[in-house]
Amino acid sequence: MSPFRASPGFTEDWRHFDFEVADGVATVTLSRPDKLNALTFDVYADLRDLLAELPHRGDAKVLVITGQGRGFCSGGDVEEIIGELRKMSSSELLEFTRMTGAVVKALRECPLPVIAAINGIAAGAGSVIALASDFRLLAESASFAFLFTKVGLAGADMGSAYLLPRLVGLGRATELLILGDKIDSARADAVGLATQVVPDAELGATAEKLARRLADGPALAYATTKVLLTRELDMDLGSAIELEAITQALLMTTDDHREFYRAWSEGRRPQWTGR
Amino acid sequence: MSPFRASPGFTEDWRHFDFEVADGVATVTLSRPDKLNALTFDVYADLRDLLAELPHRGDAKVLVITGQGRGFCSGGDVEEIIGELRKMSSSELLEFTRMTGAVVKALRECPLPVIAAINGIAAGAGSVIALASDFRLLAESASFAFLFTKVGLAGADMGSAYLLPRLVGLGRATELLILGDKIDSARADAVGLATQVVPDAELGATAEKLARRLADGPALAYATTKVLLTRELDMDLGSAIELEAITQALLMTTDDHREFYRAWSEGRRPQWTGR
Amino acid sequence: MSPFRASPGFTEDWRHFDFEVADGVATVTLSRPDKLNALTFDVYADLRDLLAELPHRGDAKVLVITGQGRGFCSGGDVEEIIGELRKMSSSELLEFTRMTGAVVKALRECPLPVIAAINGIAAGAGSVIALASDFRLLAESASFAFLFTKVGLAGADMGSAYLLPRLVGLGRATELLILGDKIDSARADAVGLATQVVPDAELGATAEKLARRLADGPALAYATTKVLLTRELDMDLGSAIELEAITQALLMTTDDHREFYRAWSEGRRPQWTGR
Repeated sequence: MSPFRASPGFTEDWRHFDFEVADGVATVTLSRPDKLNALTFDVYADLRDLLAELPHRGDAKVLVITGQGRGFCSGGDVEEIIGELRKMSSSELLEFTRMTGAVVKALRECPLPVIAAINGIAAGAGSVIALASDFRLLAESASFAFLFTKVGLAGADMGSAYLLPRLVGLGRATELLILGDKIDSARADAVGLATQVVPDAELGATAEKLARRLADGPALAYATTKVLLTRELDMDLGSAIELEAITQALLMTTDDHREFYRAWSEGRRPQWTGR
Repeated sequence: MSPFRASPGFTEDWRHFDFEVADGVATVTLSRPDKLNALTFDVYADLRDLLAELPHRGDAKVLVITGQGRGFCSGGDVEEIIGELRKMSSSELLEFTRMTGAVVKALRECPLPVIAAINGIAAGAGSVIALASDFRLLAESASFAFLFTKVGLAGADMGSAYLLPRLVGLGRATELLILGDKIDSARADAVGLATQVVPDAELGATAEKLARRLADGPALAYATTKVLLTRELDMDLGSAIELEAITQALLMTTDDHREFYRAWSEGRRPQWTGR
Repeated sequence: MSPFRASPGFTEDWRHFDFEVADGVATVTLSRPDKLNALTFDVYADLRDLLAELPHRGDAKVLVITGQGRGFCSGGDVEEIIGELRKMSSSELLEFTRMTGAVVKALRECPLPVIAAINGIAAGAGSVIALASDFRLLAESASFAFLFTKVGLAGADMGSAYLLPRLVGLGRATELLILGDKIDSARADAVGLATQVVPDAELGATAEKLARRLADGPALAYATTKVLLTRELDMDLGSAIELEAITQALLMTTDDHREFYRAWSEGRRPQWTGR
């Protein structure tokens, strides 16, 4: 647990998705399977707040996001979100879009590596949540669809027009965001949108294995790598090299780096503590 | 037509390429087929000025650029441009290079999606015009060549050294811009430089179909997506997410977004108006 | 030789790797083959200083970096570097990490194109030196491994978290830098990390041929392309286009550009001088 918590306690009851932490691995399971895990206002708000708390809890070193049933996340619920948006004022609409953006910002700024275990369709906001994760493990039958223009909205939503070109290049991002068509797992793999594609039946085990590896490894080294990857997208060469020099000098004083050398000298595997 | 035009009228007579607008689709056809549509000073100037006017006309929702005959565009004419440059002062040279850069800037800042229907060789400035377009449809026999170094100039021309790494990555961009070699359609496809490669005989129909789709769709949503993709290349994560939040809140008040919900509720396809 | 050298002379004796310049081509051969060319403090320092001097010598138009024996460069020597780092103060650690970053900064800012002829494993700092080069020619049996997290350090080292996403996209870079696993030559090729993969026996000849082409070509045009590629990663669209316009106007006054036109007019191949 972080030594720097002030008055707010931790939230133990996340009501709008399933949440558990076990042996260093936190898991969010979107849990509206009859709606392909379509998002409601409450799910967004819970994701935003969980992502703010999670790094402070101290019991989780990696986060897995997945979906119950056939879908990963079909995006904002047409009835419960789009229907409601029609009745809102401009300032209310802006509060909503800022909340959805805050989820992506929190995913990128969360120092824990995030694994999206994409078990089925990831559409609209669901595709951006996957995009903002660090690892995207796809079931063969899974797919993406940045379908915002198909509901008359900008393909730039929750940071998609910032992130997607930085993953797949501007040309492909333009096509995927303007047209909003379905991207199957083979194409996602080919363009760099999938970390790995596995048979549907192996997705759970693959995600668990990767989460285990990250939770058991040098967690501060992993977290620092993620944080610098996020920040250096927005930095120039000279500043990035300076940031890496200062950061790496700090990491060289950690228990894990010293443990590596001891283990190497003794011809054994390192025992990582994440410190 | 834009409500915010002041004194300048629209130009109906573009003398240095063929231009037409039909049913929402504007088409520029480069028309010096005996020279593989090599550019002259006049063609650059007309492209720059057309791209400034086009979004204000109000009758076009998408622009197609293609070439007559065997080539798409072989770049600056050796006789009529390179020959003349030799006689120019530094300030005249700079006026020329600024004009060519202005064409690319206008292509990227034009809110209309731009489809390059690349029917043959796209070389030099021709390859950069294609690169600055949003969709690159390639005939199988078409190719790119960023051949600037082969004429003793920098491979960085008209923004190519900004754009190409953002499409294909720094490693491939370095190779393509320093060496200037020909890139056939299969390789263009593999590295993310082609949106789609089609048999030569199908290029026209493919371009027409895509242009039709964009002209008939939610044009403001498409245009906004393009504009944000362009701008967010130069923005940091937090600013990009804020820009998308504000923009999307605006888009949620449009006719097209409301029409989506009505059509969905009534079980029919939306009738987009682009407003 | 640069007309703008002040007091420092050139260093003719580089003691920590093999160095030669022949007919416009400079070659650094890492020369600790029994250690897979693991780096020592001295090798880093020599690389940093050589890269600062090299563009001023005037006798080299391209730099080739390769390794003796089975490996390209296995990164920082575990005994001679990691062992020593354990005894250092924070300020000494920072001097070390700044030196390693300075090598990468110098590689990117050196106007000469740099060819990494990767004859075997490129691991840790060795993989970043390859990453910061302009051309990566890989022997089939060669591989990369950004293995920093495996020694308990951040995967962000010497600018790797800046450079790698700009070559292979954020998704793949995240995987490669957090996990630190081996990347064989086929995968390096697929993701854009290799310029070309060749049979092991052909690596030397392929590197020599490319170096020859670069040394015999319009060297100022090549150098300018590299410099602008480096700088424009950190520039916005408008500024990049302006920089290219001003630069290209300058290049249009060079001997090499005029020579192109003369050669073209006379139906012969240009004789490049690099001026």
